[in-house]
Amino acid sequence: AEPTYVAPALTLEGWYSHHQLFTVDRAALRALSVDYRRAAGEAMRGAIARLVSPADGGWTAAVQLVGAPADLMLIHMRPSLDGLGAAGRAVLTEPLGDVLRRTYDFLSVTEAGMYSVAVKAAKETAARGGTVGDAEYNARLAELLESERASAHVQKRLFPPAPGEAMPYVCFYPMSKKREAEQNWYALSLEERSRLMWDHGKTGRRYAGKVFQIVTGSVGFAAWEWGVTLFAADPLEFKRIVTEMRFDEVSAKYASFGDFYVGRVVSPSEWVASVLGQ
Amino acid sequence: AEPTYVAPALTLEGWYSHHQLFTVDRAALRALSVDYRRAAGEAMRGAIARLVSPADGGWTAAVQLVGAPADLMLIHMRPSLDGLGAAGRAVLTEPLGDVLRRTYDFLSVTEAGMYSVAVKAAKETAARGGTVGDAEYNARLAELLESERASAHVQKRLFPPAPGEAMPYVCFYPMSKKREAEQNWYALSLEERSRLMWDHGKTGRRYAGKVFQIVTGSVGFAAWEWGVTLFAADPLEFKRIVTEMRFDEVSAKYASFGDFYVGRVVSPSEWVASVLGQ
Amino acid sequence: AEPTYVAPALTLEGWYSHHQLFTVDRAALRALSVDYRRAAGEAMRGAIARLVSPADGGWTAAVQLVGAPADLMLIHMRPSLDGLGAAGRAVLTEPLGDVLRRTYDFLSVTEAGMYSVAVKAAKETAARGGTVGDAEYNARLAELLESERASAHVQKRLFPPAPGEAMPYVCFYPMSKKREAEQNWYALSLEERSRLMWDHGKTGRRYAGKVFQIVTGSVGFAAWEWGVTLFAADPLEFKRIVTEMRFDEVSAKYASFGDFYVGRVVSPSEWVASVLGQ
Amino acid sequence: AEPTYVAPALTLEGWYSHHQLFTVDRAALRALSVDYRRAAGEAMRGAIARLVSPADGGWTAAVQLVGAPADLMLIHMRPSLDGLGAAGRAVLTEPLGDVLRRTYDFLSVTEAGMYSVAVKAAKETAARGGTVGDAEYNARLAELLESERASAHVQKRLFPPAPGEAMPYVCFYPMSKKREAEQNWYALSLEERSRLMWDHGKTGRRYAGKVFQIVTGSVGFAAWEWGVTLFAADPLEFKRIVTEMRFDEVSAKYASFGDFYVGRVVSPSEWVASVLGQ
Amino acid sequence: AEPTYVAPALTLEGWYSHHQLFTVDRAALRALSVDYRRAAGEAMRGAIARLVSPADGGWTAAVQLVGAPADLMLIHMRPSLDGLGAAGRAVLTEPLGDVLRRTYDFLSVTEAGMYSVAVKAAKETAARGGTVGDAEYNARLAELLESERASAHVQKRLFPPAPGEAMPYVCFYPMSKKREAEQNWYALSLEERSRLMWDHGKTGRRYAGKVFQIVTGSVGFAAWEWGVTLFAADPLEFKRIVTEMRFDEVSAKYASFGDFYVGRVVSPSEWVASVLGQ
Repeated sequence: AEPTYVAPALTLEGWYSHHQLFTVDRAALRALSVDYRRAAGEAMRGAIARLVSPADGGWTAAVQLVGAPADLMLIHMRPSLDGLGAAGRAVLTEPLGDVLRRTYDFLSVTEAGMYSVAVKAAKETAARGGTVGDAEYNARLAELLESERASAHVQKRLFPPAPGEAMPYVCFYPMSKKREAEQNWYALSLEERSRLMWDHGKTGRRYAGKVFQIVTGSVGFAAWEWGVTLFAADPLEFKRIVTEMRFDEVSAKYASFGDFYVGRVVSPSEWVASVLGQ
Repeated sequence: AEPTYVAPALTLEGWYSHHQLFTVDRAALRALSVDYRRAAGEAMRGAIARLVSPADGGWTAAVQLVGAPADLMLIHMRPSLDGLGAAGRAVLTEPLGDVLRRTYDFLSVTEAGMYSVAVKAAKETAARGGTVGDAEYNARLAELLESERASAHVQKRLFPPAPGEAMPYVCFYPMSKKREAEQNWYALSLEERSRLMWDHGKTGRRYAGKVFQIVTGSVGFAAWEWGVTLFAADPLEFKRIVTEMRFDEVSAKYASFGDFYVGRVVSPSEWVASVLGQ
Repeated sequence: AEPTYVAPALTLEGWYSHHQLFTVDRAALRALSVDYRRAAGEAMRGAIARLVSPADGGWTAAVQLVGAPADLMLIHMRPSLDGLGAAGRAVLTEPLGDVLRRTYDFLSVTEAGMYSVAVKAAKETAARGGTVGDAEYNARLAELLESERASAHVQKRLFPPAPGEAMPYVCFYPMSKKREAEQNWYALSLEERSRLMWDHGKTGRRYAGKVFQIVTGSVGFAAWEWGVTLFAADPLEFKRIVTEMRFDEVSAKYASFGDFYVGRVVSPSEWVASVLGQ
Repeated sequence: AEPTYVAPALTLEGWYSHHQLFTVDRAALRALSVDYRRAAGEAMRGAIARLVSPADGGWTAAVQLVGAPADLMLIHMRPSLDGLGAAGRAVLTEPLGDVLRRTYDFLSVTEAGMYSVAVKAAKETAARGGTVGDAEYNARLAELLESERASAHVQKRLFPPAPGEAMPYVCFYPMSKKREAEQNWYALSLEERSRLMWDHGKTGRRYAGKVFQIVTGSVGFAAWEWGVTLFAADPLEFKRIVTEMRFDEVSAKYASFGDFYVGRVVSPSEWVASVLGQ
Repeated sequence: AEPTYVAPALTLEGWYSHHQLFTVDRAALRALSVDYRRAAGEAMRGAIARLVSPADGGWTAAVQLVGAPADLMLIHMRPSLDGLGAAGRAVLTEPLGDVLRRTYDFLSVTEAGMYSVAVKAAKETAARGGTVGDAEYNARLAELLESERASAHVQKRLFPPAPGEAMPYVCFYPMSKKREAEQNWYALSLEERSRLMWDHGKTGRRYAGKVFQIVTGSVGFAAWEWGVTLFAADPLEFKRIVTEMRFDEVSAKYASFGDFYVGRVVSPSEWVASVLGQ
């Protein structure tokens, strides 16, 4: 018999994403002459400005952090891994990049979980007496995924708009699901995982209009498995939504979290002024 | 039916807070000329002095640490995240900031837990046959919270006074609640959490007059979930209260702790003298 | 009685392997004169070019990373440990090596697991009433291993071809098997381990033609127990295969993973250009 | 009714203590002129010599470490936290302090556990039908503690003599008690903790005359909960006593340990000579 | 009754041992003039050569590492802790020591486990109706230990020969035994530990002639509890023996391992040439 094929975590992917985090070496900055600093600042401002709205799609957001393990963040979104690499290197190789100390880099790709599609296809297959992974299942799954991918809702998750003035505050953190003996996400059935994620999604939907969320997947790309990037008009909303979600069964039992980075989206000029200490 | 809405950890928030920790790079300091050092020290003294009592509210406390993973600490309290960011950057961008090496930054917000209010509203709702999260519950909860917020007791927790001469010693540490299989705070019922926190509070109240405590919440803001900042006239009280609390059921089973930072609140002049090694 | 001898994890080995990871110290690079930089770059290009196809076998691949804890990677494969050491040192001692900061070094050797052979020999031995480890078992095992070693399939795993243009993207990560009380790989029977690895292999085989995998063993050589190096034409395949494998029982229960490094194989000239920021 | 008050870990405290650990930056040292080095060495020698026997009590011991995560250690004992802070800063702000790199700082206070007193007072209270924490209990406890504090035995633990020539070797390590689900020191009864510590003490007493031990408490002062500082004439005794104690039930089940630092107490001149590489 | 005295892990000790690990700061090296480098190299060569065969016993081995978290290792064996400290400092204070960055230092002492002796003495004691720790037991134990100590087998473990040309490859790693709730070495009976170590020893004995092993104990001396230093003619033997041992019950359940350092023993000249990048 053919091996049964269970899609373990059906997802759709969009843009590649690089969260690039820095502190400023202020002594190195001060050692530069005033003229050099001014020219390097102007060059960096131009470089960031060019990255913000690239011709071939995606965007870069410049963030000034507060009370975080880093001073500054850039979020790059690009259609290709090569384009993403070029964006990150464009910043590092600027003369002003010499005073930036890299503290964390996170590679991921925008992701939309298709739990409900996977469950639906599996149920239909069971109803017709078929096997998950047979030809009919695969065709039906492809059809359902194509339909989902075309929806405005999923398009927005895969190709999210650049942060706007209405929600200037940002919160970024990486996370994983546990694989411990008694709390092992990867040993749960698809149905159980689908149920837990559905409940979790309800918490997020209660914050619609107050918090905009970008989920990026990083399994195979980074030590952490996902990145969560939140935008809000009021930074207290970050505390509220993350607290509520931490009580969701899926987070309470299965989630582990990395560092949190909170700040404000700024213009390229403001970002460079922040490096220069102006 | 509407999804039942359970407030997982009802809190009130006040000032944003940044604990900013430094060591001094003594070789970098010595490399500065005597004149530059004097001018930079005077400028830093002025900068700290301006931060101590900002026009738009909050305060900054300057702390000299002893035997800690850092030499010096600043505690900034501000009404807005933007104001808090400006305070921290004002220190870093001072010329004398070049010899400070950042060792830890902790972002949080003053927090008052409303466990008893949450339990009260839930019980009243059950008594009238309603559902937690229904309109009557929400109205009653808002009313109870408004009343709590207006109380002098809660006002002091959300907008704590700057440390005074009566209690010059300070102890700061971050902490979290565990989410392990057998010790999972986030899987406990609201009633159980309320009971455990009530017992815990009794230990704190026994130290009234000896230890003044500021609790700040950092879920969504930092890797650790809370910050605890204690003030006392006798530093031995830090050992006593933290030891006693560690035997409280809530700490014994559910708490995990970060580094501890102990020292003394000093004037801006003394803080700068400590940087300069005078 | 003779002690029973159970081959705990029968393997065949091929080339020694060194994954050598770097970041670039851009300030140190900028401090070099333009002429020195040009000459050092040309010398490094020559050094890498000589390493790519060494006369005595093996190869070196140059990789430009994206969004990773390192900027650049070299993968050295050599027939001897001494040759491998010489390859790594040839890079470090180049003048341009002075601006490379080492972030991670991973020593391992290409490995082909012989689980099925071990099980086969053990079953035959049981069938004839013999003991694992007796003379007949040892002779039969040697015979089976020699036959496996000679197969084209195993030869390719022990002496893998250098990455080609068809699959320029690379993903490297180290991993181990857990030895926890309830998830202890090293306490499983050979049969159980053989079954789990067979199931795991099926996931890999579904990616044949899309992902080329090199497995290197590092027990006794490094803190992590294995290295996995994947090549693909589409970097999204890394996310897909690693996600699927994470749901395999052997990974879900017994695997732990280190950092992930994703990038693209480049020519020696492109690698040096990436160091120089060109 | 009044809340029952259980002293969770009754202790007496004496001197504040700072273990200050350094490595030497030999390149920075070599960059100093011979004259500057000589003068800086002489100044440091004077500074350490002044710290050894301060007028207001306590002592400082200078230690040269072997094969440790640090080269040199100073142990400061002082009656007040302010005095302790001054001692540590006096070293750091010396010109020769510029070549010392701080690797670890540990703040604690000499501590004598009063388990037997706590048990005795509790038993007497139960016998008379009273409640732990009532007025009679408190009075009796104060009386018993005062008596203990006055004893020569406890005085020596709270105000230990400076290390002498008879036992020049020193071993320092920090430790904590576990709070895991199945090995939770803080969830044990006072009686159980008293019994375990009594057994543990017997191991220590078998080394009387061979190992002199200073226990310092750091709950509320540091991430680790205790510091143990051992002195001996033969450094092998450190291996013997720590090995034996690791098999004591209290250590086997409940203890976790930090780094170990082993070396020899030296004179201020020898300590400075060790910094200078002479 | 006298407290029963159980020797928890009876051992004999020989030479003190310091594994001293370095990376080379190649930029700092390049900044030295050619003449200074040559003179510093020659001085270091002389220093290492003097350490190799000290007049008062022991030896120093120079090792060039491959693909490890360090570039170079020195293994010092000395009869006294003071002599060991002098050896390590002799390297650090050389002018060429300025370009060595210390990455890890491990202090231990050669150790021979006397499990069988402990079990034998305990059984004899039980047979005669005595108590472990009584006078007769102690006398018998001393007699047995003296006899073991005098044996050629134990002498070689306590005072191992310096590595020779026949087995130039070396593998060093630190390890500990677990003290977790369900895998707690320190809670096992002496008999059980003796049995497990006996089985473990059989694996080692199968490699006699292929791998020479030095076991050093570091309880009380370092964070890790033991060091294992292996020598072989073929570095693949390290992978084979460590893999096999990892399946021994004692390792599978109770061992935890640190970093692994693999390389080749070289002459003082070759060691210095490796520092100099020649």
